[in-house]
Amino acid sequence: MAEDLGFEPQWRTEPAGEGTYREALMFTADAHRHPSDAWVSMFLDEFNIAPHDFVPNFPDGDRLIEGVEPGTLDESHRAAFAAIVGEENVSDSDRDRVRFGHGKSIDEDIALRLGQTPNLPDLVLHPRDKHEVARIVSYCHEHRIPIVPFGAGTSVVIGTRADHGGVILVLRTHMNQLLEINERDQVAVVQPGMMGPDYERTLNSVARNLGATEPWTGGHFPQSFEIATVGGWVTALGSGQASTYYGDAYDLVIAQEYVTPIGTITTHAYPATANGPKINDILKGSEGAFGILVEVTLKIFRHKPQNTARFALMMPSWDDAVQTARKIVQGEFGKPAVLRISDPEETERGLALKGFDAGAAAKYFALRGMKPGSRCLLIGTAEGHRKAAELIAHESLKIGRSHGGVSLTGFATKQWEKGRYHDVHVRNDIMDFGMVIDTLETSVTWSNLHQVHQTVRAVIEARPGTMCLSHASHFYEQGTNLYFIMILKPESIDEFFEFRSRVVEAILAAGGSPSHHHGVGRLFRDHLPDHLGSVETGVLRALKRHFDPHNIMNPGVLLAADEELQD
Amino acid sequence: MAEDLGFEPQWRTEPAGEGTYREALMFTADAHRHPSDAWVSMFLDEFNIAPHDFVPNFPDGDRLIEGVEPGTLDESHRAAFAAIVGEENVSDSDRDRVRFGHGKSIDEDIALRLGQTPNLPDLVLHPRDKHEVARIVSYCHEHRIPIVPFGAGTSVVIGTRADHGGVILVLRTHMNQLLEINERDQVAVVQPGMMGPDYERTLNSVARNLGATEPWTGGHFPQSFEIATVGGWVTALGSGQASTYYGDAYDLVIAQEYVTPIGTITTHAYPATANGPKINDILKGSEGAFGILVEVTLKIFRHKPQNTARFALMMPSWDDAVQTARKIVQGEFGKPAVLRISDPEETERGLALKGFDAGAAAKYFALRGMKPGSRCLLIGTAEGHRKAAELIAHESLKIGRSHGGVSLTGFATKQWEKGRYHDVHVRNDIMDFGMVIDTLETSVTWSNLHQVHQTVRAVIEARPGTMCLSHASHFYEQGTNLYFIMILKPESIDEFFEFRSRVVEAILAAGGSPSHHHGVGRLFRDHLPDHLGSVETGVLRALKRHFDPHNIMNPGVLLAADEELQD
Ligand SMILES: Cc1cc2nc3c(=O)[nH]c(=O)nc-3n(C[C@H](O)[C@H](O)[C@H](O)COP(=O)(O)OP(=O)(O)OC[C@H]3O[C@@H](n4cnc5c(N)ncnc54)[C@H](O)[C@@H]3O)c2cc1C
Ligand SMILES: Cc1cc2nc3c(=O)[nH]c(=O)nc-3n(C[C@H](O)[C@H](O)[C@H](O)COP(=O)(O)OP(=O)(O)OC[C@H]3O[C@@H](n4cnc5c(N)ncnc54)[C@H](O)[C@@H]3O)c2cc1C
Repeated sequence: MAEDLGFEPQWRTEPAGEGTYREALMFTADAHRHPSDAWVSMFLDEFNIAPHDFVPNFPDGDRLIEGVEPGTLDESHRAAFAAIVGEENVSDSDRDRVRFGHGKSIDEDIALRLGQTPNLPDLVLHPRDKHEVARIVSYCHEHRIPIVPFGAGTSVVIGTRADHGGVILVLRTHMNQLLEINERDQVAVVQPGMMGPDYERTLNSVARNLGATEPWTGGHFPQSFEIATVGGWVTALGSGQASTYYGDAYDLVIAQEYVTPIGTITTHAYPATANGPKINDILKGSEGAFGILVEVTLKIFRHKPQNTARFALMMPSWDDAVQTARKIVQGEFGKPAVLRISDPEETERGLALKGFDAGAAAKYFALRGMKPGSRCLLIGTAEGHRKAAELIAHESLKIGRSHGGVSLTGFATKQWEKGRYHDVHVRNDIMDFGMVIDTLETSVTWSNLHQVHQTVRAVIEARPGTMCLSHASHFYEQGTNLYFIMILKPESIDEFFEFRSRVVEAILAAGGSPSHHHGVGRLFRDHLPDHLGSVETGVLRALKRHFDPHNIMNPGVLLAADEELQD
Repeated sequence: MAEDLGFEPQWRTEPAGEGTYREALMFTADAHRHPSDAWVSMFLDEFNIAPHDFVPNFPDGDRLIEGVEPGTLDESHRAAFAAIVGEENVSDSDRDRVRFGHGKSIDEDIALRLGQTPNLPDLVLHPRDKHEVARIVSYCHEHRIPIVPFGAGTSVVIGTRADHGGVILVLRTHMNQLLEINERDQVAVVQPGMMGPDYERTLNSVARNLGATEPWTGGHFPQSFEIATVGGWVTALGSGQASTYYGDAYDLVIAQEYVTPIGTITTHAYPATANGPKINDILKGSEGAFGILVEVTLKIFRHKPQNTARFALMMPSWDDAVQTARKIVQGEFGKPAVLRISDPEETERGLALKGFDAGAAAKYFALRGMKPGSRCLLIGTAEGHRKAAELIAHESLKIGRSHGGVSLTGFATKQWEKGRYHDVHVRNDIMDFGMVIDTLETSVTWSNLHQVHQTVRAVIEARPGTMCLSHASHFYEQGTNLYFIMILKPESIDEFFEFRSRVVEAILAAGGSPSHHHGVGRLFRDHLPDHLGSVETGVLRALKRHFDPHNIMNPGVLLAADEELQD
């Protein structure tokens, strides 16, 4: 299918202009990844558009940020903050207020493209250490000033938008160091603002400076790995692509130090205790609504990439792929690190994009009974001890074959690994041309996986010209995560958001959760009471009231902010 | 050493008299396990006692329970409860109030032996289902009547004592069924009052009646397995002997239904979500202080005992045993199910008791450089997939050998398995003769394991004539649990409790936790604020106030009951 397009889409390759809205919305101001010709011809087919539609849209995004509504915080507060963090770490420039006042939800992306910034913080602060954070929180508590913690702002659920003004606390700027590595206990103590690649690189090698004798890995590799912070992983309960083996962020956290309006909480670094409900776990997933994570003790693992065993299978059907994945994680022979099954549409699109839907590959698949529209790709890796990894790969393939699967060697896995992080930048090019790419993900049990998958697909397919790639990743004995990537050319912005709401409603109605690993933020908070139940949500409210009696901590995240700040 | 004693200790073999204090204190009224001759001669040696000391003590324990202080609850309440649970499920007999008003702490054991029952519930209720529990809780909330949930009452931390009167809710009597088994999701839904062996036996076989197609196991085997309930495991955060592989009770719980004074909480059965702090986890370990667990969804595993690989090693020193265990659980080749390392004293006592400290075995050990007083026993099993289990056993032995260990084949492990549950009954015989056997256990990281072990041992050894068997079991990448079994013949009851307090203080001062798996109860509650910190304990207090605004739920457990019940 990868044909000569006959035209060159006017991809934007220049870095975002300094101080523009575009700069604020991009993941990295100068990183690009253009959709391949195969993608473009797919867009042309699916969205009934013509080459002349491939011109950049949203001219407002390129405007310089200026003249936005000024903040309303009293000058005396600004001086007080400057006395804490230093003048150079306080900013009320329009540019900073926009840039650090937005995350990476599609909602925020579109608003920025339109040059709309209705909700901005008054000030942006870059604290230098945890003591400064404590002083800021205590000052804000006293003066009822909202605080929004900002790791790297890759939240896709509107986690960092200052709907109530106040200050943004940027943790990435200074609080970004690996403080300690304890090889005996297999833990690292990390500041929350450390970026994924810095953390991993330090563990892999530089940790030797901290006295480490061998290379380590953190085991957490979300797709946003290159653009997110360790603190964001923990506070928003993220999952990395190798979570089936290493665990979710939730599982990786051994201890935390948290600055809250009512004081600092420090938990012990025991691997387990029976000292009542675990404070360490109560804090996880609070998304800044209870306080600021200022230090975290994480599990680490021996870094032995040479032991990785890769495997991949083409499965005859989605159900075969699902059963295979289930039997693999329930097989009690150890768990794969990466495990991912693509549904028929994701499989077909993936093959088409690589040209594998024609030629020798296509013939081979046909011969083996792998029919387009039914066949599903499964990829996986196994890590850890070499023999254990081999056993996992071996047994996984065996299960796949017993379900009619055809082994593809580890080639497909390697292909996937290549694009795993860089592909995120494709979103920008797609959005540039007036199309939208958005993702939703949800927790399912094995028992309701098909129900959720079918219901959601049906709702998506009911909208003409909507591509939907879906897969399951992050596996547990009890179920998995279903992930939906929707690509469409909406009639209007409103039409897109109405469509997305229908999909969310379908997920919840079919028995999925609002989120498996993106968090709640401001996007799903209104779904929480219905989903969890009102007595259940009351527990979160009670904790919120306890930690943050004046509702200054990231107000409106997780729970409705009661419109007005309390007190 | 197992010599002819030359006298026959007057072990008590008759079942406890019906309606006596003794009946209330025994684990099972008619189960016995007498210390072997080798044990007795060890007692004679260590405690400087003579055969004539081996006569039953505590005559008061054999008295019929009668004439205890009557309850003070109004007759109208009794009628209200009878209307809920049925007349036959309400009792205010002295016998029931004593029997269900006590757990299995040494404190309670001794009090009963002395016929002392200062704190008794007014009524004992046996609810028939969760709806009755909800009605009871709501009634008690309205009328400010304390409720103490009672699974099987094997708490060793005074978890079930009705210090504030009120009602005991016995869950074991009627609420003891496996409700559902879902093989696809690998979960079982269980009522809290189901006893360990009933649960396991049902999963192993009878679950077929619920439509199961193969045998399952719950994977949770505390030493108290035969005498405790599933609900007790969860609410008090227990650990089974195979927890290194299957996880602690905390890890096994996928979802819960909890009746609290402010309403019923039901959590979803997803394996993972990012919907804010996890309510399911917040409830775990609340020991009845927040509400009553009425249904629990637990992970289950394929029951394949034929795959179990056993291994055992004699290690030249405690440090070698510790390093070996650490490297095993950090080896990333899968984890053993059982893993246990005995310190030199436990090892020596164990060998002596089996006669292995003399003869051919002794010579063999000497030849291999395994010196008494230094050598340490390591035992383990690996379960799950056959090849994975073999690999774990193989790699574990390899690590042990590299630390100078000598493989003992699986014999030592099998020996240990034999006594694993039945040995609990030995406590009664020991207590009968005026000696005391008590246990303390604590969480440690690898980094502070030696510190805790040495400090605590030193405090114990400073008391002449005190045997202390200690071991580590329940392993994690980040640390383990240290377990101390103390056997002594105290000068007086007070002297024993003073001694035990010193040991607890030593554990905490050295950096251990109050409990790794016994829970907090009323025994450690006053240590919690110091240990966790006051802001941290404040979180538990806030949750308590939220769930239980009138402080009727197991008052005095986890947190001080503020002397008077709140209003
Ligand atoms: C293209 C793309 C791909 C993604 N893929 C994945 C994926 O594979 N897996 C995954 O889990 N997520 C993914 N995400 C979502 C996002 O990257 C994660 O939620 C990430 O963990 C957020 O990290 P961050 O540093 O950007 O946090 P932010 O967005 O800055 O913050 C996230 C939330 O936590 C709060 N917060 C941040 N730091 C602190 C702190 N120190 N103390 C208290 N609160 C704090 C914020 O206020 C906000 O509510 C993806 C996002 C994008 C844009
Ligand atoms: C000889 C011996 C050996 C032991 N070995 C181990 C061991 O190896 N591992 C281990 O973990 N523990 C062990 N224990 C401790 C004890 O057996 C465990 O804590 C067990 O899980 C308690 O179960 P139970 O049913 O007896 O609970 P109970 O003693 O009845 O209750 C324990 C606590 O939970 C509360 N509770 C009970 N049921 C509910 C409910 N449904 N809802 C709310 N609250 C409830 C009670 O009020 C109490 O505070 C041992 C005890 C003894 C006596």
